[in-house]
Amino acid sequence: VDAGFPDRLAALVEERRSQILLGLDPDPGALWPGAVQPEGDPDDPAATAAAVTRHCRAAIDAAGPACVGVKFQVACFERLGWPGWASLEALVEYARDTGLLTIGDGKRGDVPVTARAYAQAFFAPPDGERGGLAVDAMTANPLLGRDSLAPLVDGAAGSGAGCFLLVRTSNPGAAEIQDVPAPERPLHELFARMVDELGAPSVGDCGLSAVGAVTGATQPQLLARLRELMPRAVFLLPGVGAQGGSVHDLAPAFEPHPAAGLVAASRSIVNAHAERGGDAPSAAAAAAEELRAATWDLSHP
Amino acid sequence: VDAGFPDRLAALVEERRSQILLGLDPDPGALWPGAVQPEGDPDDPAATAAAVTRHCRAAIDAAGPACVGVKFQVACFERLGWPGWASLEALVEYARDTGLLTIGDGKRGDVPVTARAYAQAFFAPPDGERGGLAVDAMTANPLLGRDSLAPLVDGAAGSGAGCFLLVRTSNPGAAEIQDVPAPERPLHELFARMVDELGAPSVGDCGLSAVGAVTGATQPQLLARLRELMPRAVFLLPGVGAQGGSVHDLAPAFEPHPAAGLVAASRSIVNAHAERGGDAPSAAAAAAEELRAATWDLSHP
Repeated sequence: VDAGFPDRLAALVEERRSQILLGLDPDPGALWPGAVQPEGDPDDPAATAAAVTRHCRAAIDAAGPACVGVKFQVACFERLGWPGWASLEALVEYARDTGLLTIGDGKRGDVPVTARAYAQAFFAPPDGERGGLAVDAMTANPLLGRDSLAPLVDGAAGSGAGCFLLVRTSNPGAAEIQDVPAPERPLHELFARMVDELGAPSVGDCGLSAVGAVTGATQPQLLARLRELMPRAVFLLPGVGAQGGSVHDLAPAFEPHPAAGLVAASRSIVNAHAERGGDAPSAAAAAAEELRAATWDLSHP
Repeated sequence: VDAGFPDRLAALVEERRSQILLGLDPDPGALWPGAVQPEGDPDDPAATAAAVTRHCRAAIDAAGPACVGVKFQVACFERLGWPGWASLEALVEYARDTGLLTIGDGKRGDVPVTARAYAQAFFAPPDGERGGLAVDAMTANPLLGRDSLAPLVDGAAGSGAGCFLLVRTSNPGAAEIQDVPAPERPLHELFARMVDELGAPSVGDCGLSAVGAVTGATQPQLLARLRELMPRAVFLLPGVGAQGGSVHDLAPAFEPHPAAGLVAASRSIVNAHAERGGDAPSAAAAAAEELRAATWDLSHP
């Protein structure tokens, strides 16, 4: 039997000495020079999607060696229509073939019957047949409550995959909802308790569970409390770099295990050449490696 | 200048004398007999998507005349991979060509930069170029707060489209989150206030705004209060039929205007032959017409 998501993640973090997720949220207007073909029709979705695929492959080639996985921002592929979805499928396979974990960041959430359809969309079928994106983990929105999450958590378990629930997102506007007292403790603490409970059945040998939490790196003052509430959850930490978060504030995420925190960085890696100069691939490789080393050191004091 | 979403909706509701949305959430294992081709390979996603397209077209042909629009459950197309997304695109166009409104029910929500990508995925570009699904409205999840919703609301406004925010969903599990006091009034009232405020700039001549609310028909006791908080919002009411809601409890939705409530029904129309007998299209047409007449009568006492 294959190991579940937590133990696969833990082994891969140790092997690659990295907790970094390369975030891919391609903007067709800001692709790497080598990816754009001058003869391509900018209004042809298939040509745009092909350029996006080349761009993302090049970013995986350049920054992948310093990373443990790739986080795909599904919205950025959906906006290209069906050729974008085909590009996403091809890139998930490409990243998997290079030995990287794959995370589909779509923040899905719906009533139970529909949540089952999303589980089918994102996870490989349990019978080993083809189908679905077959990512190693997806992100999910917990607003619809536990019955809406069970099909995603169960679907993940059936495919040896994981599921990251939004607990506290990285954007400023999150405060007005996720931090409201509900009724005494903030709403994000209610979500944190759900993550801990939903993850209990899937704790692996490494001590981590298959139900993780998205906890924005822009709110590091919350991390110690969230770690207390979710001692077995892997924290997916967006917001380092472009959104202002610093990796040095993230220590509580790594307390239980080096694989208990995954730092997602997209623009600060893929657009590193704008700040550093040099060609895009070299700048991305250097930025990813710096982030990898800083995070690894932080989690191995 | 084309009318915005509220006035287009209001005119179409009057013209078609219907507030019914045909919900399409196709299950490849339960398609109408005429849609399945016996020689099709059930493991071939393209063949499955083609059968789903035929099924949905037949459902639109049969039930569409009693409806004002079609609500597409995006998850059910995503689970077929890129051929499913292509099927969704083709069906949105087909429904639009028959004169029906189109609603992309994907419950998207993400940080602002990503929300802009979702707006591009769902709405037609403001410049009239091709691109995006080009639905008349999408559904969105408000958990990430106002800054995450602004790009969707602005994207809708730029395309003459609408946006329905989840306020109180129809599933049982919604209670543990959406009904928690936050800190005094339930969280769904906080969302209701956001809907009202975000919709203020887009109120049309009909008095309704382009920012609507998903308010489950399974919780009719909440509708009067929600109507009080959102006097200008169109209510998208899922949960009639299969989920147990009854159209007769929905009167508060229609108080401001006949177009202020849209009743979404999927399985109770598309699977009507299971209860009524007869062939699937005739049963769907009859079920949709009954629901149309009951809802129309309710809103024209």
